[in-house]
Amino acid sequence: MSGTWGNRIKISIFGESHGEAIGAVIDGLPPGIKLDMEAIKFQMKRRAPGQSDITTARKEEDEFQILSGYFNGYTTGTPLAFIIKNKDARSSDYEYIKDIPRPGHGDYTGGVKYKGYNDYRGGGHFSGRITAPIVFIGAICRQILESKGIYIVSHIKNIGSIDDDSFDAIHIDEDLIRRLNTMRLPLIADEKIKDMEAEILSAKADEDSIGGSIECAVVGLPAGVGEPFFDSVECRLSYILFSIPGVKGVEFGSGFYITRMRGSEANDEFCIQDGVVKTKTNHSGGIQGGITNGMPVIFRVAIKPTSSIGKKQRSVDMTKMEEVEFEIKGRHDPCIVPRAVPVVEAAAAIAILDLYI
Amino acid sequence: MSGTWGNRIKISIFGESHGEAIGAVIDGLPPGIKLDMEAIKFQMKRRAPGQSDITTARKEEDEFQILSGYFNGYTTGTPLAFIIKNKDARSSDYEYIKDIPRPGHGDYTGGVKYKGYNDYRGGGHFSGRITAPIVFIGAICRQILESKGIYIVSHIKNIGSIDDDSFDAIHIDEDLIRRLNTMRLPLIADEKIKDMEAEILSAKADEDSIGGSIECAVVGLPAGVGEPFFDSVECRLSYILFSIPGVKGVEFGSGFYITRMRGSEANDEFCIQDGVVKTKTNHSGGIQGGITNGMPVIFRVAIKPTSSIGKKQRSVDMTKMEEVEFEIKGRHDPCIVPRAVPVVEAAAAIAILDLYI
Amino acid sequence: MSGTWGNRIKISIFGESHGEAIGAVIDGLPPGIKLDMEAIKFQMKRRAPGQSDITTARKEEDEFQILSGYFNGYTTGTPLAFIIKNKDARSSDYEYIKDIPRPGHGDYTGGVKYKGYNDYRGGGHFSGRITAPIVFIGAICRQILESKGIYIVSHIKNIGSIDDDSFDAIHIDEDLIRRLNTMRLPLIADEKIKDMEAEILSAKADEDSIGGSIECAVVGLPAGVGEPFFDSVECRLSYILFSIPGVKGVEFGSGFYITRMRGSEANDEFCIQDGVVKTKTNHSGGIQGGITNGMPVIFRVAIKPTSSIGKKQRSVDMTKMEEVEFEIKGRHDPCIVPRAVPVVEAAAAIAILDLYI
Amino acid sequence: MSGTWGNRIKISIFGESHGEAIGAVIDGLPPGIKLDMEAIKFQMKRRAPGQSDITTARKEEDEFQILSGYFNGYTTGTPLAFIIKNKDARSSDYEYIKDIPRPGHGDYTGGVKYKGYNDYRGGGHFSGRITAPIVFIGAICRQILESKGIYIVSHIKNIGSIDDDSFDAIHIDEDLIRRLNTMRLPLIADEKIKDMEAEILSAKADEDSIGGSIECAVVGLPAGVGEPFFDSVECRLSYILFSIPGVKGVEFGSGFYITRMRGSEANDEFCIQDGVVKTKTNHSGGIQGGITNGMPVIFRVAIKPTSSIGKKQRSVDMTKMEEVEFEIKGRHDPCIVPRAVPVVEAAAAIAILDLYI
Repeated sequence: MSGTWGNRIKISIFGESHGEAIGAVIDGLPPGIKLDMEAIKFQMKRRAPGQSDITTARKEEDEFQILSGYFNGYTTGTPLAFIIKNKDARSSDYEYIKDIPRPGHGDYTGGVKYKGYNDYRGGGHFSGRITAPIVFIGAICRQILESKGIYIVSHIKNIGSIDDDSFDAIHIDEDLIRRLNTMRLPLIADEKIKDMEAEILSAKADEDSIGGSIECAVVGLPAGVGEPFFDSVECRLSYILFSIPGVKGVEFGSGFYITRMRGSEANDEFCIQDGVVKTKTNHSGGIQGGITNGMPVIFRVAIKPTSSIGKKQRSVDMTKMEEVEFEIKGRHDPCIVPRAVPVVEAAAAIAILDLYI
Repeated sequence: MSGTWGNRIKISIFGESHGEAIGAVIDGLPPGIKLDMEAIKFQMKRRAPGQSDITTARKEEDEFQILSGYFNGYTTGTPLAFIIKNKDARSSDYEYIKDIPRPGHGDYTGGVKYKGYNDYRGGGHFSGRITAPIVFIGAICRQILESKGIYIVSHIKNIGSIDDDSFDAIHIDEDLIRRLNTMRLPLIADEKIKDMEAEILSAKADEDSIGGSIECAVVGLPAGVGEPFFDSVECRLSYILFSIPGVKGVEFGSGFYITRMRGSEANDEFCIQDGVVKTKTNHSGGIQGGITNGMPVIFRVAIKPTSSIGKKQRSVDMTKMEEVEFEIKGRHDPCIVPRAVPVVEAAAAIAILDLYI
Repeated sequence: MSGTWGNRIKISIFGESHGEAIGAVIDGLPPGIKLDMEAIKFQMKRRAPGQSDITTARKEEDEFQILSGYFNGYTTGTPLAFIIKNKDARSSDYEYIKDIPRPGHGDYTGGVKYKGYNDYRGGGHFSGRITAPIVFIGAICRQILESKGIYIVSHIKNIGSIDDDSFDAIHIDEDLIRRLNTMRLPLIADEKIKDMEAEILSAKADEDSIGGSIECAVVGLPAGVGEPFFDSVECRLSYILFSIPGVKGVEFGSGFYITRMRGSEANDEFCIQDGVVKTKTNHSGGIQGGITNGMPVIFRVAIKPTSSIGKKQRSVDMTKMEEVEFEIKGRHDPCIVPRAVPVVEAAAAIAILDLYI
Repeated sequence: MSGTWGNRIKISIFGESHGEAIGAVIDGLPPGIKLDMEAIKFQMKRRAPGQSDITTARKEEDEFQILSGYFNGYTTGTPLAFIIKNKDARSSDYEYIKDIPRPGHGDYTGGVKYKGYNDYRGGGHFSGRITAPIVFIGAICRQILESKGIYIVSHIKNIGSIDDDSFDAIHIDEDLIRRLNTMRLPLIADEKIKDMEAEILSAKADEDSIGGSIECAVVGLPAGVGEPFFDSVECRLSYILFSIPGVKGVEFGSGFYITRMRGSEANDEFCIQDGVVKTKTNHSGGIQGGITNGMPVIFRVAIKPTSSIGKKQRSVDMTKMEEVEFEIKGRHDPCIVPRAVPVVEAAAAIAILDLYI
C-alpha cells in the first residue's frame, strides 16, 4: 500500500519518473473551496528543477491538469484527480540501472521487492519527482488552512557545515513568514546565504552532493488538535514526512537535544499572556500528549545528500554478481534541500489539515 | 482515533492510569502461534516500575489476563484481547491536576481536547502506563519475528551527558543481543554504567529528571520489506514510535548527522559478501527507498526528561486564570529511559511484523 | 481483520462463546456523552436468551463492565472498552464439534481457516453470542442519535409463512416507535402475534428451527448523509448488517421487488410538504445516489433459520473422513429472529452514527 | 471518503460524467502480472453503451490509457493509474438539473450534500459512467483470479416479469461459464431471450424503463477465504456491490427465500465427494460463518429501473420552491441490467481478490 495516506483527507499518489504521467487523487476535500491556481503554480515552481546553478539542470515543467472534482472554479467535494505529464525524459540514461544498482537509491531494494518488474528508469516510482503531486495536494491544503489563519513556514537549518539561526530564538511574525515563503534559499540569517551557496557549489565542483536539514513551523493552530497515542501530531507528521525520499530524521521542539536536558529545563511552564494560556518556552514544539497547545508546532527534518553524484562509485553488477566501478551519467542536484523545502511544507499541510478538518 | 494502529496486525489499545483496567485487542494474529508466557512476563517486567533506585518507587504488578483469541496454549487467529487491572492507585494525589495543568504533561492539551471530561487522574489515557499493553503486544510480535530469525535489540545511547558507543562501529552478534536484552541498563560499553547511574541519581537528588536516547537495531530482516512512500519502513516505525509518551525525535542510520555529509560518504556502496549483496557502510540504517536492503535496520529515539519532577514549578490555575507556583506530589521516575527500552523494542516489533507478515 | 469496523467511530470486538469474556473497544466517541445505563441494559436484555418459551432456555446474564473511557458518568473521548464475562458454559456439550462440523455453522469453514486452532466450543468466535457487544455499542450510538432526533425502529416482517404488514403503507410516528421498541415480538399488525408464535412453537415441537426477516427504519435523518459510491448509506449498512451471524440478504426500499417495476413507478417523485422537499413514495428507501433524502431510511434483513436443531442431521467425521448421522445436544433457539431485532437495530445505529457524526 | 475501497488491493476512483476524464488508481497489485489488454477491452465493451437497440443510443468509447504501474507489458507492483477521457458529452442537455432534480437520481441528495458545488451535468460523479473504472479494475482482478482457477460468471435472473432459471438447479461447468460470459443477454434458459428483449422494448416504447436482477457465481474458490464478522465474504461483497448505482438489494444463497425455510431444510449437510468435503445443497451460497466452504459463492443483486425516462414526471423547482411537470431529454437506457452484468462481475472480482490475495 505504498501510495495511499490519510484519514479524513485520503490521498492516493501514483507515477514513475519516466512513465506517462504522475499524479494523485484527493478524496474528502470539502465542496466549495475556491482554488487559487496561481498559488498552486507558485508552490509547484518552488519544487521544480532547473531554476538556478545550485539545482539540477534538468527542466521539468510540472504542468498539472485537473481531471475531476473541480467545477466552475470550486472544489465539488467529490474526488479531485490531477495528472502531471512526464517530459524531457532521457530513458536511455538509465539503462544500466537494470544491472548495477546505484548506491543510496531504491534501485536494489525496489528490484528485490518488485522482483525486477519495476520501472527502473530514473528511479521510477522511487524518484524524487513523485513529490510533485505532494506539493500540489499540499498547496490546496495550505489554502484551506490559511483561510483559517494557520500558516506553514520553514527555513533551511543547515546545509553541510553552514547553519542558520533557529525558530527557537525569534518570534515568527507575518513579515518573516512572507519573506521565507518567497526566498530561493530561505534563511533567517540572510547574511549566511553566500556561505550556503558556496557549500553547495563546492560539492558540485567535486561532482559530489551535500545534505542538510529544514526547520518548519505551523503557526496559528489552536490548542486541542491531534490525538493521544497513534494519531498524535508527532505521529501523523513524521508518518508523512518520512515518505519524502531522502528524509532520515524528524524531531520536534528541542528534539534530540532534549536528551541532554533536565526536566526542570525541558518542561514548558504555563503562563498567561493577553488572557490566553501560553507556555514560556517551547521545548515540546507546541505538542504535549500528542495534542497541540496553541504554541507554534516546530519540527526539523534531516535530508541526506543527493544519492546521484557524478563521482566514481563502486557497486555490484547483479547479473554477473561481481563488484564494479561506475559513474552515474545525467544531470544531478548537488543539494536537494532547497527543492525539498516546499515538499516538507506540503506534507505538513496535508497532515495538519487531515487532523484539523 | 487515538488508539487504533496497523494494517495487517490491527491493534486497539485502551485504558486510563487510574481506571478499571488497561489493555488492548490484537486483530490479525495468525492462528497456531504457541505463546511463551514467560517471555511475555519478562518483557512486561522490564517496563514495570519499582525495580530499583533509578526508577520510580511505585509498584505496578502489570499482571495480564488474556480474554480471547487464545486456546489450549495457541493463538486461535481470532482477535486476542487482554487486560491489565489497575492497582495501587492513589487517586487523591492527582485531584489538583483538574485545576493546575502540570508542565510537560498532557493535562492542559487533553483538557482542551476533551472539554474537561477526560479522566485526569495520573495522566489518565496520557499516562506512560498505557505503554504496558504495547509491551505485551510487542512481546507476541517478537516471538513471531524470532521464529523467523529476526531479532530486535537496543541499548541506551545517552542519558544526559553520558554517551554509550553506537551500533555503527560493531557487529551485532548473538552474544551482544543476549547480553543487551537482559541488562537493566543496556549499554554496549558497560564501563559506562556507573556514570550513567550517577547521572540519573544526581537528577533524582535534585528532585529533577533527565532525558536520554535509545538506539535500536532490527537484525535478520531480509531485503525487500517495506514500501516506497507512505508505508516505508521509516514511515511505519516513526508513526508508532512517536506514539510513545515522551518521544521527541526519531532518526535512521546516520540520521541528523547525515546532513553534514557529502553523497560520496553517505552513499552505502554495494559489495558481495559470502555470495550475498551487502553494503560496505550502513549510513542509511538498512533502508533505501523505504525498503530494507538486508542490513540491520538501525534507528535512534530521543526521549525527553520525565515531566513529573518534585521541584517547584510554575503553572496556571485554570479556574482562577492566574499563574501559580506548585509542587507535584507522588513518586517519580528520575529517568524514564531505562523503562522505555522495552517499549521502543515492542513498538518496533509491532511495526516490523505488520510490514513483514 | 475480522473484528475491526468503522471510519469515524472505530470498533474492535473480540471474544469466544466459551472463553473468558467477550467485549469491544470503541474509539472515537465524543467526550461528554452522559450514558443512560438503564437504556443500555434494556437493549442488552432484548437480545439476551432465556426470556420465554420461544427462545433458548440458556440463561446468559450479559452483565457488562466498562473498563475505560468513562468517568464520572460521561464518556471521556478516549477509547471506551467493556467486557461481558462468560458464564453458564457447558463446554463438554461441544467436544464432538472438533471432529464433526455442524451443518450451517462456521465449524467447518472456521476449522479450515484457522487450521484447527480456533476455539470450537459453542461456535467460539462464530457464536451469535458475539453480537452482545454489538448491542452494547449500538445502545450508546442510539443515545447519541436520539439526542439529535434520529430514531431507529423495526418489526419482524415475516417468520416462516407468517407475514406482518410493512412500513411502506404507514406513517412511522412516535407512538409506533415506542410500541415496537418495547414489544417482545414487534409486529405492526399485533393480531398476527399468535400466528407467529405458533409458527415458532411448531418448529420447536419438531426439534427444528425457522427463519424470518426484519424490517428496520431510521427516522429523522436529515438529507445529505452518506457518500456516493463506496461509502453510500446502502454500502455501509449492508457492510455491517451482513456481519450478523445468519443474515443472508439485505434490501433497501422496494428491494428485490423493484426489479419487477417500471421507472415511472419506481422513481420517487419530489413534492413540497410543509415547505420542505419530500418524495411522494419511498421506493428508494430514503436513499438516492447513496445519500439520504430526508425520508425514512428503510431496509429489510433476511435471517436464516437457526443452524442448531435437535433433529438428526448428516455430516462428515473429519478425522475418519466418513459421512455420519448425529444430533446436536444442548438448548437451542427455535427462531433467532426475535433476538436478532435489537442486533439489527444496533448495527444500524453504529453505521448511521459513523456516517453522520 | 466516497471513492476509496479495499484492504489489500486499495482502489481510488474519480471522475464526473461530463468532466475531463474518469479513472482510478489501484494500489497493491502484485508485480509481474502480464495484462491481457484484449480481455480488458472485452469487459469494457460489455459495459459500454450504444451497442444495440435494447441499450442507450449514446456512444461512449471508453478508451482507457494506463499512466503508471505498468511497464514492458507487466504490472510493476507500484500504483497503477488509468484514465478514460470523456467524449460525446452534450452538457447543455443537463442545464435544467441545476434547478429541477430528476426523480430517482442523485441530483437532489448530491445538491444537498455538496451545497450546490457538485458537477450536475449528466449526474456528475453519480453517473453510471463512473462504473467504467470499476470494470477496468475488475478485469485485472479477474485475470489474477483466473490464473488461480477462480471464475466469475453471471446471468440475468429476471427483467420485469420475465425470469431465467437459477444457478441453484444446475452444475456450473466450463461450457456454461464460457457461454454466459460472451452473451449479450446472458440467460441460462436461452429460449427466454426473446421474451426478455420484448419486456425491455415494451418499456422503451412507452418511454419508460424496467428493472431486473443478476445472479452471479464465483466458482473455484477454495474453502477458508473470508473472515468472521466484519470482513465476511457477504460483508465485503455487499459493501462493494451496493456502490453500483441502482443496486437496491443483495442476497446470498437462498437469500430472502431462506426466511420461509426450516433449519432442517436450510442447513447444508456435509458429504464427501471424490475425497473432498462438500455440501449436498448450497442454501448458504458457499459461505458459512462468513468464510467460503469450497462450494460456489452465489449471490443475487436487485437493480432498479433506470431513473432517466422520457415520460413526463413531476418534481420540484428548487429555486422557485414549487412543484413542476417536466420531461428528461436525452437518450436513455430502457434497461440498465444487461450493462450492469459486467459491473457486478467486476465488483465481485475486486472484493474476492482483496480477500484472497
